[in-house]
Amino acid sequence: MDTFGRIFRVTIIGESHGRAVSALISGCPPGVRLDGSDFEPAIKRRKSGAAGTTGRTESDRPIITSGVFRGYTTGAPVLVEFENSDAASDDYEQQRYLRPGHADLVAKEKYGDSNDYRGGGRFSGRLTLPLVAAGVLAAKLLPGMQIAARLVEAGGKNNIEESLDEALQTGDSIGGIVECTISGLRMGLGEPFFDSMESILSHLIFSIPGVKGIEFGTGFESARMKGSQMNDAFVDASGQTATNNSGGINGGITNGNDIVFRVAFRPTPSIALEQNYINVKSGELERAVLKGRHDVCFALRTPPVVEACAAIALADMTMLQNSRG
Amino acid sequence: MDTFGRIFRVTIIGESHGRAVSALISGCPPGVRLDGSDFEPAIKRRKSGAAGTTGRTESDRPIITSGVFRGYTTGAPVLVEFENSDAASDDYEQQRYLRPGHADLVAKEKYGDSNDYRGGGRFSGRLTLPLVAAGVLAAKLLPGMQIAARLVEAGGKNNIEESLDEALQTGDSIGGIVECTISGLRMGLGEPFFDSMESILSHLIFSIPGVKGIEFGTGFESARMKGSQMNDAFVDASGQTATNNSGGINGGITNGNDIVFRVAFRPTPSIALEQNYINVKSGELERAVLKGRHDVCFALRTPPVVEACAAIALADMTMLQNSRG
Amino acid sequence: MDTFGRIFRVTIIGESHGRAVSALISGCPPGVRLDGSDFEPAIKRRKSGAAGTTGRTESDRPIITSGVFRGYTTGAPVLVEFENSDAASDDYEQQRYLRPGHADLVAKEKYGDSNDYRGGGRFSGRLTLPLVAAGVLAAKLLPGMQIAARLVEAGGKNNIEESLDEALQTGDSIGGIVECTISGLRMGLGEPFFDSMESILSHLIFSIPGVKGIEFGTGFESARMKGSQMNDAFVDASGQTATNNSGGINGGITNGNDIVFRVAFRPTPSIALEQNYINVKSGELERAVLKGRHDVCFALRTPPVVEACAAIALADMTMLQNSRG
Amino acid sequence: MDTFGRIFRVTIIGESHGRAVSALISGCPPGVRLDGSDFEPAIKRRKSGAAGTTGRTESDRPIITSGVFRGYTTGAPVLVEFENSDAASDDYEQQRYLRPGHADLVAKEKYGDSNDYRGGGRFSGRLTLPLVAAGVLAAKLLPGMQIAARLVEAGGKNNIEESLDEALQTGDSIGGIVECTISGLRMGLGEPFFDSMESILSHLIFSIPGVKGIEFGTGFESARMKGSQMNDAFVDASGQTATNNSGGINGGITNGNDIVFRVAFRPTPSIALEQNYINVKSGELERAVLKGRHDVCFALRTPPVVEACAAIALADMTMLQNSRG
Repeated sequence: MDTFGRIFRVTIIGESHGRAVSALISGCPPGVRLDGSDFEPAIKRRKSGAAGTTGRTESDRPIITSGVFRGYTTGAPVLVEFENSDAASDDYEQQRYLRPGHADLVAKEKYGDSNDYRGGGRFSGRLTLPLVAAGVLAAKLLPGMQIAARLVEAGGKNNIEESLDEALQTGDSIGGIVECTISGLRMGLGEPFFDSMESILSHLIFSIPGVKGIEFGTGFESARMKGSQMNDAFVDASGQTATNNSGGINGGITNGNDIVFRVAFRPTPSIALEQNYINVKSGELERAVLKGRHDVCFALRTPPVVEACAAIALADMTMLQNSRG
Repeated sequence: MDTFGRIFRVTIIGESHGRAVSALISGCPPGVRLDGSDFEPAIKRRKSGAAGTTGRTESDRPIITSGVFRGYTTGAPVLVEFENSDAASDDYEQQRYLRPGHADLVAKEKYGDSNDYRGGGRFSGRLTLPLVAAGVLAAKLLPGMQIAARLVEAGGKNNIEESLDEALQTGDSIGGIVECTISGLRMGLGEPFFDSMESILSHLIFSIPGVKGIEFGTGFESARMKGSQMNDAFVDASGQTATNNSGGINGGITNGNDIVFRVAFRPTPSIALEQNYINVKSGELERAVLKGRHDVCFALRTPPVVEACAAIALADMTMLQNSRG
Repeated sequence: MDTFGRIFRVTIIGESHGRAVSALISGCPPGVRLDGSDFEPAIKRRKSGAAGTTGRTESDRPIITSGVFRGYTTGAPVLVEFENSDAASDDYEQQRYLRPGHADLVAKEKYGDSNDYRGGGRFSGRLTLPLVAAGVLAAKLLPGMQIAARLVEAGGKNNIEESLDEALQTGDSIGGIVECTISGLRMGLGEPFFDSMESILSHLIFSIPGVKGIEFGTGFESARMKGSQMNDAFVDASGQTATNNSGGINGGITNGNDIVFRVAFRPTPSIALEQNYINVKSGELERAVLKGRHDVCFALRTPPVVEACAAIALADMTMLQNSRG
Repeated sequence: MDTFGRIFRVTIIGESHGRAVSALISGCPPGVRLDGSDFEPAIKRRKSGAAGTTGRTESDRPIITSGVFRGYTTGAPVLVEFENSDAASDDYEQQRYLRPGHADLVAKEKYGDSNDYRGGGRFSGRLTLPLVAAGVLAAKLLPGMQIAARLVEAGGKNNIEESLDEALQTGDSIGGIVECTISGLRMGLGEPFFDSMESILSHLIFSIPGVKGIEFGTGFESARMKGSQMNDAFVDASGQTATNNSGGINGGITNGNDIVFRVAFRPTPSIALEQNYINVKSGELERAVLKGRHDVCFALRTPPVVEACAAIALADMTMLQNSRG
């Protein structure tokens, strides 16, 4: 559904070409310092104009509509809106093509004729903007924690600029891998059986469009390791370990080590090459090159989104743990 | 928390050495045929005595305590219990060691002195038995779907027997990779923004002890592909595609192709080799070899557990989709 | 919390003197016809200038920010906003008094210094405006049902105008009783054990500020009846009954008869008479007459709010029932 | 649905004539002292053999199946089961009659042929036994609070014995009113907008079979009072009030005064007098006197059930409040 969380709950509202995209954060405690400028660094990183990012220019200015009074959260729902300045122009156009690799076809099937297909509608990367905003507020509940995500690989290489140049020249797109590290954690967060720390994090991460995989600690490599290699050996009786193969989590609960996870992003489905499209009007397959702005490697813009997901997960798990007094 | 699902909801109850482990399924429609024998095939596969599985012998006989009348679900909660015949023996023992790679330390920290540590308590693989039971009922709501998981790799090799023999001889343990394919799907299941099909599946899968990663379709390899390779090309105007790189899901919604995902399981943390343990009584680190029954490769037993997670996810998403009439 | 519902879910956002009050409706099926004018009749009734209603004038114009495309719901969250044109003026004033009968004191205690006290903040009757809006959309999912609430008693009399005049002249306020009838119901709605039709309705109704009681069918009078009087006698084998003492619900499930319930509203706590207030600055009790706009009998304006609650409850219960296919 | 609560969550399992009725309490913190004898006083009161209570004799012995280790909760779900010693005997009988005033007809409609009608199935008063058990555990989270409910009226009179005698002699049944007082409360519990203290309490209370109304403080009488009478006058600047007309709650939040509410229970629908029944086999209406054990005034047994609902509500609201740290 459109809401995630048990206590600290986030709802993502809006469509790519509607009036606005918004984040509603409910359950945030009162008294948290918050103003519009707090969102700037993360929004800027998400938007940033590295080679190969989309040409769409939006002001991305957050409007805090409710839940904040004189610079502090009130305990009521916080609604943060971002107007879509670009929107509306194509209001009366008809949908022309269903594109491969996109949600166009499934959305048409699931939501029917009233599906808002414009610019990808609900499936647009633009929806990650309010997600980032929610993460900014979540992070404020986590003093002492640091959450840092970065693109560690693009197009199969660590030399990211090179991969981008190559893709730009060919009109193709590339994917990438983002690694996220969360440090400063206390032991004991996570709510198994079903709400293991990994369950909550992966649930949120797979909300980001284009994610194809997630792994924690040594991840898929773990499946190829022996127990004697994989087990993080205790080096003292407090539970300090020599390694962090488990990625900071045992049995779904934080163990005090850094949480480390990696996320695989597929290449942008929109490419400047000839492909088969379903022509909605004719009901026929049509081979074409579709023009349009898009990211050559949208993974470039996802680190702040991944960080937001991590912050939301930890804020909720922290409040749940606190509920026990 | 201990419950998952919006409409078809599953709660996992019990501990390894308590009286019983149980599945509570709430929200199941009335009129579904169900008796104890329905659980047998999946339970048998989970238990199965392949080389390297644990020596623990439990009857694993399901007792349907409520919610079924004359062989059909009534619409009331279905409680399926499995007694722990092995339990209780160590009731008055004290916890001696906190083991590396296990949840012993974090559980002690999170739950305090009243944590039920016996046999791993809530963190034991035994808890996957009621999960499998819940999956059996879920699968009954999915006529026409087939869910099939199998171990495709153990200890880094496709030759699984060989890997097992090797591990058994050394006293070490190995991990593995399970691949699950779901076919016979209709288009349109999944509830983005937050409840994408991948989000729901991964949430459930990471509830299984020992999972370190999940990937859909081409998964992590997607991050190394070009858009022109990754996009599943339409071959006709109904949306049939030449490939299934996306693993049956676009934008979080099923596209009618098979859902395909792979799950990485770590090696069993319990091994018959010398390791550092935290001695609870002395508060000191102690180097020891712990004896005890355990699976050399618990991944062997997980395919029916993975299938259960898939069935639970699909049952809930199907009921949600149906709610729209 | 700020959200209610299992599938058709409503969140109420905003404060009396913030930028806007808004309703977020999530889980509404796609394809429901909706435009701004749909809200007018209910909003008008809620606002209506009967003698004794508040002098506050707001445009109460709904702005549908998201979830509607070309006049139909898209399946995405529907956000309906109402700007507070009156707001902001008192932004830099300090809270002067904690008023008896209001939530001022408890809000200060619960939410601390960042509580938005202006105009009653979250506790203002203004928050019932988005609730009414949510009800308008809910009612669209209930073809064939009629929901009608009316004030049947004010100030202890059926002659409502007379009661109002009397209260106006004395500077005092009066309460009232609203009766709601829902007809055109199908049998079988309601989800016991915990989500009986009465549980869901009462939960929503007690969200309306100032409600002190609710009763179904013969209600409190039932406690004084004999079983032989109370039981609704069957008059034919289809289940038609001679009476409707149970108010259309048996065992928490609709029986096809009209649902009938009554709601008791307290008198408006704000009155134009001398009372004790807590002076926030001095920390002393102070006897004063506070001037200000308020309803002499806010119950007058609640029938559309009660109808909205009923519609929301029935929309959710209907979707839940449909989920079973 | 079958579960209630945000953090401290209770599920009621079982049917009147199934193997057992059970309470599952999930989200209870670890370290709470609990053993079987804790349940005795409340169970005894619920069962108690005052004139006019049912002849059914059950051992009502709680079996704690999980979530408790060495006398303390572990943090895992607590399952408390009560076997139905009386059950099973009528397993192969067919349902003969649909009774007036009962849920027989609606249950048959909603759940179809697999509805477990025996002894009222899910709608039996027996289901309040696990509810009472859940309340016992909830109350342990509320040190310093006292919750006391009592029958203040039966058959329209305060002289309860007299009313009972009269009803017994005529073969009829009577209803009653239960008043509940909760003292020792802190200010600030309750989670408006939707989870006002009254909303949560009424939601739970209307889960009890046979409830027709609930009112807080001066309740329905409030609707007949003036604001100047109804407002609880402050007598000092701490917020002490001269009266408690609001029943301990303002704006949905506890104000530190006692919560006081009254619950109206209808007369038992089963009576020893001639009534119309729907004969299931013939599909005809049939006039008959049905023999069977039943309470002349089941309201007599409900005070501990009402207390349990209050305790569950307060435990959850307390944990939510604590979650804010």
